[in-house]
Amino acid sequence: MNNFTFWSPTKFVFGKDTETRTGELVKEFSGKKVLIVYGGGSVVRSGLLERVKKSLDEQGMNHIELSGIKPNPTDDRVYEGIELARNEGIDFILAVGGGSVIDTAKGIACGVLYDGDFWDFYCGKKIVEKALPVGVVLTIPAAGSEGSGNSVITKLDGLVKLSLRTESALRPKFAVMNPELTFTLPPYQTACGIVDMMAHIIERYFSTTPECEITDRVSEGVLKAIMAEAPKVMESPCDYDARANIMWSGTLAHNGVCGTGRVEDWASHFIEHELSALYDVAHGAGLAVTVPAWMTYVAAINPSKGAQFAERVLGIERCAGDSDHDMALKGIACLKDFFRSIGMPVTMEELGIKNADIDALVKNLHLHKGELIGGYVKLSAADTKKIYQLMA
Amino acid sequence: MNNFTFWSPTKFVFGKDTETRTGELVKEFSGKKVLIVYGGGSVVRSGLLERVKKSLDEQGMNHIELSGIKPNPTDDRVYEGIELARNEGIDFILAVGGGSVIDTAKGIACGVLYDGDFWDFYCGKKIVEKALPVGVVLTIPAAGSEGSGNSVITKLDGLVKLSLRTESALRPKFAVMNPELTFTLPPYQTACGIVDMMAHIIERYFSTTPECEITDRVSEGVLKAIMAEAPKVMESPCDYDARANIMWSGTLAHNGVCGTGRVEDWASHFIEHELSALYDVAHGAGLAVTVPAWMTYVAAINPSKGAQFAERVLGIERCAGDSDHDMALKGIACLKDFFRSIGMPVTMEELGIKNADIDALVKNLHLHKGELIGGYVKLSAADTKKIYQLMA
Repeated sequence: MNNFTFWSPTKFVFGKDTETRTGELVKEFSGKKVLIVYGGGSVVRSGLLERVKKSLDEQGMNHIELSGIKPNPTDDRVYEGIELARNEGIDFILAVGGGSVIDTAKGIACGVLYDGDFWDFYCGKKIVEKALPVGVVLTIPAAGSEGSGNSVITKLDGLVKLSLRTESALRPKFAVMNPELTFTLPPYQTACGIVDMMAHIIERYFSTTPECEITDRVSEGVLKAIMAEAPKVMESPCDYDARANIMWSGTLAHNGVCGTGRVEDWASHFIEHELSALYDVAHGAGLAVTVPAWMTYVAAINPSKGAQFAERVLGIERCAGDSDHDMALKGIACLKDFFRSIGMPVTMEELGIKNADIDALVKNLHLHKGELIGGYVKLSAADTKKIYQLMA
Repeated sequence: MNNFTFWSPTKFVFGKDTETRTGELVKEFSGKKVLIVYGGGSVVRSGLLERVKKSLDEQGMNHIELSGIKPNPTDDRVYEGIELARNEGIDFILAVGGGSVIDTAKGIACGVLYDGDFWDFYCGKKIVEKALPVGVVLTIPAAGSEGSGNSVITKLDGLVKLSLRTESALRPKFAVMNPELTFTLPPYQTACGIVDMMAHIIERYFSTTPECEITDRVSEGVLKAIMAEAPKVMESPCDYDARANIMWSGTLAHNGVCGTGRVEDWASHFIEHELSALYDVAHGAGLAVTVPAWMTYVAAINPSKGAQFAERVLGIERCAGDSDHDMALKGIACLKDFFRSIGMPVTMEELGIKNADIDALVKNLHLHKGELIGGYVKLSAADTKKIYQLMA
């Protein structure tokens, strides 16, 4: 087990009606003038935005809004938010939505207190040392951004999608998580979220760092819980307990507890980011195509973790004569079946991409992420090209 | 799943040589004048205390000491620490040790800023609203106090052992966790720690709140990791990775992640607290006797969780005709075997208590903890008497 720091200071307030406590929580973390960041109409239509604003009003707080944040969020909205926050003397950013909204809020939070271009943080030129506090009212369990110090933003110029990781500077101060707010999520988006959270664990699970039994066992537990609850939320979108299990799993999948003490992988996310940057597909659906292809490719090089995944997570019994590679492939087939069962694509064509420009994807990938990517198996452009081909 | 707040803001700094960062961490959390609390000679003999003091010196910090804290820590040392901290203008309490030392440090931390008697917090008269910051250098993985907001202190007058639980006021700001510091722990103390952390999970696992799949699966994962690593640390006390797995498991067992969304039990701890208060036995060894007896008694009333524990944690296969009660009993037999395998007692006699004064134990228990105890099954004095009898 490697040395590590685990620091997840976010206060998670989970359950029914918890959004009515938003104002009280902003106050607890010293917010006075709030920028509310949100996406499309559903937050308005459902009445959630009004309830959140009422709760801020009850604490006598000023608030303004930045709305219309879209999936695969872009830098232009971050710049807009930074200017707005500066002009209005904002001291707290409140994200009401899912990963795209939260990630935009984080970009604004670090940008406001920085004299240069906020993109410096995302492209690795600068390290975030201070940021405005961010709070979250979560509506989409998927990205795990409510409990992480990370943010992913796409630069419109060149469609560069980059991920910023901070130890604590961008961890939300609080996250309000009411599973009822997810009842109206469409099935496709629900399934995308499920794949995204599973991928967050798989990226950490496939590690060559030996002797991380506790981290393996926690990861396997969260994966098993997600796979047990997923069919229930797909079948009964208003099943409170199933939604609650999925929502909390999404947080544990990405707050770092599944990665303690080991080198993580993240190749699948990098490979997918180029897909969603170029073709604007949903990130979770892109991952449903990417992860099995990546697992198949690396199983031929190092099948050990794939075999463990098949046995411990999927409960596949090893038959006489089964090699680790056989086991890994059985696991991948089972994982694909699971993704299909919740309505996810497992090929590019099913994802709606015909004749993908694989050369462009590979070129962009290594231009943005370096010559070699991945922690479990180091992948060059020759490798990632084959993985994109496996996805076709 | 019930509504819950999960807030574990402690910064865990885990791995080799991390104690050399203590001064830097105290500084990060604004400490200037430090009270170092520790136990007996091992912290001195191993050189750990010197390394910690050197690291404080390097940050130019003043520090004084309170030493000689004993297992089952008592209120007299807390009063002494409060007076010392006040007289010396201490602004940070640093615990170097295990649960007893950390719990004493927490008692001092809340007592210093309170005009009345610190015992008011432990007996439930007052709620902790402010406390001095506490930092930890952990040497014994067991109590989980490095990541919890709790503290257990025994009042010498009447031998009342009470547990204080806070949401965040007494959570350590940081915990330095170097598994190498546990290499010299004697086998008995190592095993006691293993039982204590397992009990912390079992207290949360046995719950009647339905539909907590994610919390169940995480709990099962941590339990499985502990049971896989325990034989390794017993066999090879200097196996770094095994010690590391056990150490981190102890934190996850008690930072709250195994209890999210459900009613917890805690009857076994309450029953054991009376034992260790009256007979001064090691808490972990007391739990090795208490937990199986408690599980046996409640299995006759509600066997469902015991059966799940047997199947999912211990991997016991259900044979044709096995009832939940049969499964639960098989699991308990297997758990006792495991405790014995690491050198733990499973009867009062093996614990060194002959002819225990069961009437006194039962009387004290319900005097201190109320007429009914436990969340999974509500236990009256008639019930707890039978549990103590099962332990004989």
